Amino acid sequence: MEGKRYVYFFGNGHADGNGNMKDLLGGKGAGLAEMTNVGLPVPPGFTISTEVCAIYYGNDKNLPEYIINEIEESLSKLESILGQKLGDRENPLLVSVRSGAKISMPGMMDTILNLGLNDETVEGLKNLTSNSRFAYDCYRRFIQMFSDVVLGIDKSKFERIIDRKKEEKGIKLDTEFTAEDLLELIDEFKNFVKKEGKSFPQNVKEQLYMAIEAVFESWNNQRAIEYRKIHKIPDDLGTAVNVQTMVFGNMGEDSGSGVGFTRNPSTGEKEFYGEFLPNAQGEDVVAGIRTPYKLDELKKIMPEVYEQLKEITEKLERHYKDMQDFEFTIQRGKLYMLQTRTGKRTGQAAVRVACDMVDEGLITEQEAVLRVFPEYIDQLLHPVFDENQEFKVIAKGLPASPGAASGKIVFFADDAVELAKNGEPVILVRLETSPDDIHGMKASEGILTARGGMTSHAAVVARGMGIPCVAGSSNITVDEDEKVLITPDGKKYREGDYISLDGGKGEVYEGFLKKRNPDLKSGYFKRFMDICDKFRKLGVRTNADVPEDAKLAREFGAEGIGLCRTEHMFFAPERLPHVQAMILAETKEEREKQLEKLLPMQREDFIGIFKAMDGYPVTIRTLDPPLHEFLPKREELMVEIAVMKERGEDENKINEKEKLLSRVEELHEMNPMLGHRGCRLGITYPEITKMQARAILEAACICKKEGIDVKPEIMIPLVGKVEELKAQKEVVLEVAEDVFKEQGVDVKFLIGTMIEIPRAALTADEIAKEAEFFSFGTNDLTQTTFGYSRDDAGKFIKIYLEKGILKEDPFAVLDVDGVGKLIKIGIEKGRYTRENLKVGICGEHGGEPSSVEFCHRVGMNYVSCSPYRVPIARLAAAQAAVK
Amino acid sequence: MEGKRYVYFFGNGHADGNGNMKDLLGGKGAGLAEMTNVGLPVPPGFTISTEVCAIYYGNDKNLPEYIINEIEESLSKLESILGQKLGDRENPLLVSVRSGAKISMPGMMDTILNLGLNDETVEGLKNLTSNSRFAYDCYRRFIQMFSDVVLGIDKSKFERIIDRKKEEKGIKLDTEFTAEDLLELIDEFKNFVKKEGKSFPQNVKEQLYMAIEAVFESWNNQRAIEYRKIHKIPDDLGTAVNVQTMVFGNMGEDSGSGVGFTRNPSTGEKEFYGEFLPNAQGEDVVAGIRTPYKLDELKKIMPEVYEQLKEITEKLERHYKDMQDFEFTIQRGKLYMLQTRTGKRTGQAAVRVACDMVDEGLITEQEAVLRVFPEYIDQLLHPVFDENQEFKVIAKGLPASPGAASGKIVFFADDAVELAKNGEPVILVRLETSPDDIHGMKASEGILTARGGMTSHAAVVARGMGIPCVAGSSNITVDEDEKVLITPDGKKYREGDYISLDGGKGEVYEGFLKKRNPDLKSGYFKRFMDICDKFRKLGVRTNADVPEDAKLAREFGAEGIGLCRTEHMFFAPERLPHVQAMILAETKEEREKQLEKLLPMQREDFIGIFKAMDGYPVTIRTLDPPLHEFLPKREELMVEIAVMKERGEDENKINEKEKLLSRVEELHEMNPMLGHRGCRLGITYPEITKMQARAILEAACICKKEGIDVKPEIMIPLVGKVEELKAQKEVVLEVAEDVFKEQGVDVKFLIGTMIEIPRAALTADEIAKEAEFFSFGTNDLTQTTFGYSRDDAGKFIKIYLEKGILKEDPFAVLDVDGVGKLIKIGIEKGRYTRENLKVGICGEHGGEPSSVEFCHRVGMNYVSCSPYRVPIARLAAAQAAVK
Repeated sequence: MEGKRYVYFFGNGHADGNGNMKDLLGGKGAGLAEMTNVGLPVPPGFTISTEVCAIYYGNDKNLPEYIINEIEESLSKLESILGQKLGDRENPLLVSVRSGAKISMPGMMDTILNLGLNDETVEGLKNLTSNSRFAYDCYRRFIQMFSDVVLGIDKSKFERIIDRKKEEKGIKLDTEFTAEDLLELIDEFKNFVKKEGKSFPQNVKEQLYMAIEAVFESWNNQRAIEYRKIHKIPDDLGTAVNVQTMVFGNMGEDSGSGVGFTRNPSTGEKEFYGEFLPNAQGEDVVAGIRTPYKLDELKKIMPEVYEQLKEITEKLERHYKDMQDFEFTIQRGKLYMLQTRTGKRTGQAAVRVACDMVDEGLITEQEAVLRVFPEYIDQLLHPVFDENQEFKVIAKGLPASPGAASGKIVFFADDAVELAKNGEPVILVRLETSPDDIHGMKASEGILTARGGMTSHAAVVARGMGIPCVAGSSNITVDEDEKVLITPDGKKYREGDYISLDGGKGEVYEGFLKKRNPDLKSGYFKRFMDICDKFRKLGVRTNADVPEDAKLAREFGAEGIGLCRTEHMFFAPERLPHVQAMILAETKEEREKQLEKLLPMQREDFIGIFKAMDGYPVTIRTLDPPLHEFLPKREELMVEIAVMKERGEDENKINEKEKLLSRVEELHEMNPMLGHRGCRLGITYPEITKMQARAILEAACICKKEGIDVKPEIMIPLVGKVEELKAQKEVVLEVAEDVFKEQGVDVKFLIGTMIEIPRAALTADEIAKEAEFFSFGTNDLTQTTFGYSRDDAGKFIKIYLEKGILKEDPFAVLDVDGVGKLIKIGIEKGRYTRENLKVGICGEHGGEPSSVEFCHRVGMNYVSCSPYRVPIARLAAAQAAVK
Repeated sequence: MEGKRYVYFFGNGHADGNGNMKDLLGGKGAGLAEMTNVGLPVPPGFTISTEVCAIYYGNDKNLPEYIINEIEESLSKLESILGQKLGDRENPLLVSVRSGAKISMPGMMDTILNLGLNDETVEGLKNLTSNSRFAYDCYRRFIQMFSDVVLGIDKSKFERIIDRKKEEKGIKLDTEFTAEDLLELIDEFKNFVKKEGKSFPQNVKEQLYMAIEAVFESWNNQRAIEYRKIHKIPDDLGTAVNVQTMVFGNMGEDSGSGVGFTRNPSTGEKEFYGEFLPNAQGEDVVAGIRTPYKLDELKKIMPEVYEQLKEITEKLERHYKDMQDFEFTIQRGKLYMLQTRTGKRTGQAAVRVACDMVDEGLITEQEAVLRVFPEYIDQLLHPVFDENQEFKVIAKGLPASPGAASGKIVFFADDAVELAKNGEPVILVRLETSPDDIHGMKASEGILTARGGMTSHAAVVARGMGIPCVAGSSNITVDEDEKVLITPDGKKYREGDYISLDGGKGEVYEGFLKKRNPDLKSGYFKRFMDICDKFRKLGVRTNADVPEDAKLAREFGAEGIGLCRTEHMFFAPERLPHVQAMILAETKEEREKQLEKLLPMQREDFIGIFKAMDGYPVTIRTLDPPLHEFLPKREELMVEIAVMKERGEDENKINEKEKLLSRVEELHEMNPMLGHRGCRLGITYPEITKMQARAILEAACICKKEGIDVKPEIMIPLVGKVEELKAQKEVVLEVAEDVFKEQGVDVKFLIGTMIEIPRAALTADEIAKEAEFFSFGTNDLTQTTFGYSRDDAGKFIKIYLEKGILKEDPFAVLDVDGVGKLIKIGIEKGRYTRENLKVGICGEHGGEPSSVEFCHRVGMNYVSCSPYRVPIARLAAAQAAVK
């Protein structure tokens, strides 16, 4: 361990690290090193590497001596470069201490500014700057921040002291405080800390180490854990700590702080985009308490600095070949860069930036494909407001995160979660959001805040989550205690009232507005998807049971249907009675009679689907679920009968119910997922398969005669032994012969099977003798491979995820190590028997990016997923191919 | 196909086939060929091979010409050897046509004797034998048999004609008919056949081919299919057809027919054993209609023939090195051998014969091991009547199949099945049994017949099934129509009355007699099992949850416990309330309080088991089943509450019930088999595992201090990810440290896991990093590999077996192709990580012979099975090793 470097210095045009060392230095540290190396004005400092985070936790939350020694060395170097000294009365060094993980977690980690101030050094600062008000303001801010972050005293408590002081002094703004007022505040703050049972350290080294440790501690605070869970960031990455010389944006009107993006993070437009607050420290901009100016303002106030900033950030973008998100501070007219990183963006922006950068020659098409995260695409597919309705704008704000949202107003995160649980769409309305609101934001359809800018907590988090957000709607009043939102015209909207908002326009509307699907056939989206299609090797189909879904999916780029479930058709109200009668039938003849009634209906369904998928293959699965799903519930019948008897109702009626119950009992299963379903039904009641095969093939013949290019693929579910497939295939082939004779036309079709039971994968060589295609049903395969029931496992999967026993819910993300192994075995064995066997996947995983990548790797021909996931699968497939 | 031989001739001291060609010639054909080759007196003939059976069915039930040509050639050869001709008026050749599959199916296939007789040739036979009565009797028998077997007219209808004729003539016995009576009968038979719409062919060739085809047809009659299903004989074996020159046992008092065994098939004693009927054809002996003489009678009547027969059969036994079952006919003082085959025997006989033959130097110990089928051992373990009770003998008969049975009297097979379904033990009482009774015989505890000998249908089938049988109890009266059994003293026993029988002694007792376990510590059984233990490589453990089972299994030779289920202990009445309170607990503290109450009880259980298994390993599985198994049923609570409400009962009581229901609802699962059970419980409620680990280890410490050699193995169930095992292991190790400190003693123990989920097998390399042993839980593994619920699959598995989609119930016989593949993967991967990993099996399959053989082949260390299966597993393991 010793001899290895744990602390990386940057300053004076040279850094120990560089931009590629995000793992070790975190995003912020790597950016600072890289900016230093390319000669940008970066205040010097040092980064304590992410490895130290684990060492800290592994060493009973203590920093070992060899690391303290390295920190001291770096500190000395910093002091000698600047000619300042931490704790020096005359020329005190002041530093900021910030966290910085590999993956940025905005607002999650705590920052401390002005560290190094105490009762003595504050006087040095006063003398150096000849500005007592500034010095005391820095000191009171430091006490406040340090107490909040390190000592755990909520900062709002200090805000209350400030509010009281303002009242006492009869002023409204912080800036109106005199130096003397601030001195009083400092004393009151220190007393308050004591009263809370803590002590604010006057020893500056103590300050430094307490701050460093607080950063490591904050890695495991509730908000950070929550954020990592939502964004699937591994818990063992750890955070680095950046200790950097302070520069001050609050040294007067020739100073200021700002943040910005090299392109518009909402739309992707190429524009210099950002916000700026004069005479303010960086935290003031991000916190959203004061609404900041646009960067254009800077151009007016300090045109040279503006031009320098523009030049630097353009250089950064070219250097990193990606849109940058930067932070800067102007101290008495001098520009300092404090951070640069890849900018978070909306789906719309991601797609546009990728396309534009290809045009600009900055990146290749392959790189463009990798630039757009699949989640981004998801955002783009979501509906927009239907233009054909009345829009009553009740408020305006910043277009912080695009998208259309309608729902009931709630004012607290917990209420949002509660209401959303019942399926209610909600809009979270807050003065401003904080990390404590994360769970409520996630549960909301949209977010509206009264305060904060485009880079406020609400805006950044909402964009990250893909949730529409209007931020800084500053002329509305939000009274959280009273649970009321008051619009500029004085109208009150209370909890439970409906509003709508357009996060792309920054507008808020009265009532619940209807939505329509977005246009995907033109513009950047189409262009980007075309690029993806150029690279991907995997076909993308959709799971669709009805023509409408098939049409939608085709618009989204589906190249066929990978799974058409026939049972969903059975639940339609005009069919269910026949389905029930069929199930309750005591003879084959009676069953056939009912099936005959269902035949024309099923045939119509298939005609619709074949037409919607003209030219593309359509895989139709024969009946799969256990029959009792179609019947009344056993326990409800039992209760009903008991009550009828209790009431002494008509014997005949009771008998009838009892007869029904007795058939339901016969069909009742302890574990229906492992019961009489799938091809087991088709084998015990071949007449069902017969009817379905007839409906499919008659529909195909009819369509073909109308000039439709039909490609039916009949899929037998739940096969575990080749004999099952063989038996069902015989039934289908027999029907086919009859139908083609009757219809006077032949249709080419395939017969294949789901591979959704371990035994099928293990004996795929046998099964491929009969199957013309395989479709991996990874929902069921995951169920049986893990022995988890999808209906029930939620309870313990949640605990497993919390305890780290599972990294992912295997029903959401394909389990490559277990289920994946069976899939590989299945494909290898299947292709051993039938070299060109067509292989696909039709479980939920077919639209999950990492699972799609796996499907590509193991050589599947296609994935099939729900319509909305089709473009995501296209992108994921392209990314897999490019990688 | 042409150029290949399909018909095998035998005769004149030479045969085309030999004794090893059972696959092609069937057992009977191979025996005839072998006997011919060794120079025994066998009537010449030819065998149409089993392959022709498939050809026949594959050719639309027609014999192709190239096979007809071969038959004709063989027939010519036969005619030229004998100087007779089929259909010749002067010197007609008469033949028998019999079926003969590879595996003997007694009574299942139909036999035709005297073929070649018609209105003309019968005169030739009359002249040749100078015995018109004999000739006409042969002819009327032939018409009767041919009509029954080939034309499908039930033979009982002819019996009725005979009965009428007897009445008309005022006689009682068949033998009293004169030649003229028989001529009349022949006419009446022929007219009756016509009246039935059939025609009896006068063309002898037509007779021959119709008979041959009828044999092939009979392969697929209901009885044959039933028999094959019970005895697990593959449907595609097919039968051969034996066409053999007739010899006549009914040519007078110097003639006769008989069957016999070279040793006693009930006890295994070395004695010349069999039955004989003078002046009778073979069918009369086997049919059981006349009660035959013992072979000793033959010694008195025809001593020379007796000696010759004894010499021949002894030679046959030495030749085949196994006990023989033979058929012979004596025609006018000359002995002919018609069949020899390996004799069926009881378990007791099998063990004794094997041991004796080792002593006689006939076979090696290895051969002896292979001679005893595992099913035989099963018979030996079954209880015998307890001597300490009163035995009232009400009837005696032949000791046809040993064993003790008690139950309710039934008179029909269907009634036996019906009553047995409800769990009632039944004794089937019949005049005589026929193949139509097979299903009822299988359902019975014991069988009693009034007619028939040791080789009657009832006796042979009962021995095959291992069901106790007293046959030929000729002084009882069985009135099937009245459903009454009348004993010699006139006492009546009706349907539903209890009787008992000892099939080894041939005695029938009044009432329901109690049984006790057999003595396994001495005699042939012990000697044979010792031989087995010498060869087997697999260890044999038992599945036992309580000390009594452990003790019993140890007597049966178990070398430890492979599976001790702790949940069975939870169901004890004094524990269930605590278990329920534990489950219903809303806090961890409350749960721990209840677990503390269970701790001393579980500890006592384990102390008992450790003591019973002193010196042997004991594998204890932590809690496995879903918790709701311990609670009241959800639907019953729902009904109860609905009724209480309807009745307007006390609100508080209703509330209480509703509270219970709501917790039951919380625990309710759609598919409990795939739900919150196994280690998932231990992980969500570690306090349960903690209590169980404590109970096990405290018990171990206490036993060790008492001088008991304890070897605990703690087994974590349902692991699918190594992280699960790791988490549970940590809990156990922590407890172990505490317990050993408290008890002041250390006990060596192992922690391992069940491999019972596909994912565990697929990632066994990972799991073996934590597991010190693997135990394959093949019940669950079969469930998930097939996706069959053991609770529900019975319904469709039955149909799958009928349709041939499954060859075996995979819950009974391990599915080598699917589940077996996972086991192989699991062992390979496990041993890759941990070279000496101990591997066993503890599913039901651990006691099923073919599955045990598989376990041996894949290199397991041991199998574990229920106590009664331990000796079977020992034998199966030895057989696997010897093979």
